[in-house]
Amino acid sequence: MLFRQMYDNETSTYSYLLADEKTKEAILIDCVLEQVERDKKLIDELGLNLKYLLETHIHADHITGISKMKEFFPLVKSVVFNNSGNMCADIFSIDNQDFCFGEYKIKVLSTPGHTNSCVSYYIEGMVFTGDTLLIRGCGRTDFQSGSAEKLYNSVTSRLFTLPDSTIIYPAHDYHGMTSSSVYEEKIFNPRLNKGKEEFIKIMANLNLPYPKKIKESVPANILCGNIASKNKNKV
Amino acid sequence: MLFRQMYDNETSTYSYLLADEKTKEAILIDCVLEQVERDKKLIDELGLNLKYLLETHIHADHITGISKMKEFFPLVKSVVFNNSGNMCADIFSIDNQDFCFGEYKIKVLSTPGHTNSCVSYYIEGMVFTGDTLLIRGCGRTDFQSGSAEKLYNSVTSRLFTLPDSTIIYPAHDYHGMTSSSVYEEKIFNPRLNKGKEEFIKIMANLNLPYPKKIKESVPANILCGNIASKNKNKV
Repeated sequence: MLFRQMYDNETSTYSYLLADEKTKEAILIDCVLEQVERDKKLIDELGLNLKYLLETHIHADHITGISKMKEFFPLVKSVVFNNSGNMCADIFSIDNQDFCFGEYKIKVLSTPGHTNSCVSYYIEGMVFTGDTLLIRGCGRTDFQSGSAEKLYNSVTSRLFTLPDSTIIYPAHDYHGMTSSSVYEEKIFNPRLNKGKEEFIKIMANLNLPYPKKIKESVPANILCGNIASKNKNKV
Repeated sequence: MLFRQMYDNETSTYSYLLADEKTKEAILIDCVLEQVERDKKLIDELGLNLKYLLETHIHADHITGISKMKEFFPLVKSVVFNNSGNMCADIFSIDNQDFCFGEYKIKVLSTPGHTNSCVSYYIEGMVFTGDTLLIRGCGRTDFQSGSAEKLYNSVTSRLFTLPDSTIIYPAHDYHGMTSSSVYEEKIFNPRLNKGKEEFIKIMANLNLPYPKKIKESVPANILCGNIASKNKNKV
């Protein structure tokens, strides 16, 4: 399987391109608006047939590249979880749904908590955890119907029950780390290696500033990053 | 095999940690001074026995973490190529030399051109190319005994002769890409998919500004990043 992790430096966001090297069918997880041309170039060079744009959640820190990517690849289908409030995805996914590309399939794991509609994606020893589980951290739970209790339950019941060797690929990292493992996060994640009560207390006392881009990102992402349509609606 | 790619945001430098998960023996390629504590923490958490610190070359854009890392891990051996001018490495490597960690061995490939002592490291379908070959680019050749002709010969004779599927892990990327393949760089590298004469012409006309940190980095890296010793020598 072809695998590429790609980074958006401004927002410290990772996108992931996966493809079946035989059939050339491909998926792209969490593409970023500002990086669509970079990603398109790579997809074209590799001769890939982009089948799905999978989102882990409605992002609050950057605008998704879905709409712009669909201009370049009109046949690609965008996939957002069913309760996300998104108004334009091609497919509203459900828990445990599989998406196939070539010989591979990737499974939706409902992991609410950072937002109420967060999912992770599992495929062959790798899990893409979005903002649910970060390397030695996790997404905040103080907006977008976030819930520390739900996040704790999601991580412990859906992610920490995967094999210890499963590689974790998050949606962000702010320290230059690119991956982790279930084993490591179980043991060394300073928020999640404790009990639920303590986790809830930690999350309640983070006192984080509001994300810089939330006011533009969330409304735009509900419309699949279609900024033109958003501005039109304003007029 | 445990594999971790790690990023230094300030200098866009990648470091690579590889380990045998059974024996816990590990190597670290191109560690960065400012990231030594991050890297040490991960090595400690994973219970690794750090055996070698491998350098791809005498860097001009950042200071190596070798000396600081050796304070934390006194038994680790630093490895620099034999003609690099380095004055303090534990091992001065030669072309085709293997370094073993657990069940694995990684091979030195002499690939001069960016500097006269650049090497790449090959192990099981992956090649760590330092600044010799970057993703859709290559290191500059206008200082530290650089030579466009040598770089072209190194890439075409030592790297492009590896299997097409070999994954390329460079020492830097400035566009958020984390890896490539020999196949891709043969076809799509805009400098190196041409003939030697054209490559030499391209490299002669880059007109790049001098690296910001070269005056402090090169003398410090010749001393394995031992800044204290460097400052002492000045006095």
